[in-house]
Amino acid sequence: MGRAELQNSGIRCTTVCKMRAVIPYKKTNAKSRLSPVLTLEEREEFVELMLKDVVTAISKAGIEAIDILTTSAGSVADDIKANVVVDKPGLNEALNGYLQNANEPVLIIMADLPLVTPRHIQEITASDKDVVIVPGKGGGTNILFIRDPASFHVKYYDSSFMTHCDIAREMSQSLEVYDSFLLSTDIDEPHDLVELLLHGQGLSKNYIQQKFEFEVSKGRVKLKSN
Amino acid sequence: MGRAELQNSGIRCTTVCKMRAVIPYKKTNAKSRLSPVLTLEEREEFVELMLKDVVTAISKAGIEAIDILTTSAGSVADDIKANVVVDKPGLNEALNGYLQNANEPVLIIMADLPLVTPRHIQEITASDKDVVIVPGKGGGTNILFIRDPASFHVKYYDSSFMTHCDIAREMSQSLEVYDSFLLSTDIDEPHDLVELLLHGQGLSKNYIQQKFEFEVSKGRVKLKSN
Repeated sequence: MGRAELQNSGIRCTTVCKMRAVIPYKKTNAKSRLSPVLTLEEREEFVELMLKDVVTAISKAGIEAIDILTTSAGSVADDIKANVVVDKPGLNEALNGYLQNANEPVLIIMADLPLVTPRHIQEITASDKDVVIVPGKGGGTNILFIRDPASFHVKYYDSSFMTHCDIAREMSQSLEVYDSFLLSTDIDEPHDLVELLLHGQGLSKNYIQQKFEFEVSKGRVKLKSN
Repeated sequence: MGRAELQNSGIRCTTVCKMRAVIPYKKTNAKSRLSPVLTLEEREEFVELMLKDVVTAISKAGIEAIDILTTSAGSVADDIKANVVVDKPGLNEALNGYLQNANEPVLIIMADLPLVTPRHIQEITASDKDVVIVPGKGGGTNILFIRDPASFHVKYYDSSFMTHCDIAREMSQSLEVYDSFLLSTDIDEPHDLVELLLHGQGLSKNYIQQKFEFEVSKGRVKLKSN
């Protein structure tokens, strides 16, 4: 069921309804800010494992249509159970083009959120609001759930959390801010790997656990190479 | 009602039941890691406003017995509506002494969590688990809810999140980890003030807003003096 039908019947779409998830993804030379602790090859392996963890969570939440949005089809491993959508570089242009062509609610989720669980996805997509934003650290947007893709557009980079809240207001879309530490933790820098070790459970956590262990000093946990 | 009665009747204590909240608090030369952006006097003003925001949220959640645990009675402003409990230095010793003397469920909440809302407190204290832990960034424990204080002890510092999970297991206490970005954000360092500006709404947010504004660069929001 699409949204128009649901509005007529007064019932909101939940995870049992048709919806799509889209994951922007870049493998080549990904996560350069992790280069102090991981080599280029390791970073490329690691982002693929994070992507697999994200796809698994979405899939277990009951969303069947999962698209990986990338600039290079060859960068997505064959064993990842998702469609590959190839577009030109430019995250905002690619996502807004995607939204324009979507006829059902869309969940935009970043590939560097390996702490996501099926329960998160189910709660976000069960919201009774038009748009759900999951803030990242430092003013970012880590997940966006958009019921009516024609009534929204994205503008990532540069404090996108505030921008997306503004866009929702301008477009008269009701808004929920979903509060989650695990989803606020996009894995960008070495200290984010500590959160993955502490709170993760998937493939990417296992990968990092093989390479690092905890070092506790001055009340905070740090990484130490194995 | 204490826990023993509730177990007998099969009903769990929620926020309408009797419980206590305790907030460890230090004003003198507090938050030294904020010294690059705030003077000593400003930091002492700021921690008092954060404490007021925390007390307001707890109070609005319906908890009437609020204790501020400090080493100096004079450090707590008269207009803060809470009891002042003076103890010797040593966070763990003071809190474990407090727990030993408590006859009702206890919520331990840090004073540097100005993003806390009454809803957070209500959800945490409504848990059906024996112990609820709210993790902070980097392996810390920002809030602990303990139904039966005689069956738990605290050990803050040095990756206390893992330690408190272990203690709950050792003491056969059922455990919930409460996932909140806002509650994971203890205000320790300048970049934490960005989160307060973005997501806060209380006295301490207003204080920081008078001094700083956003500066957007390289996709992240930073602070800039007014």
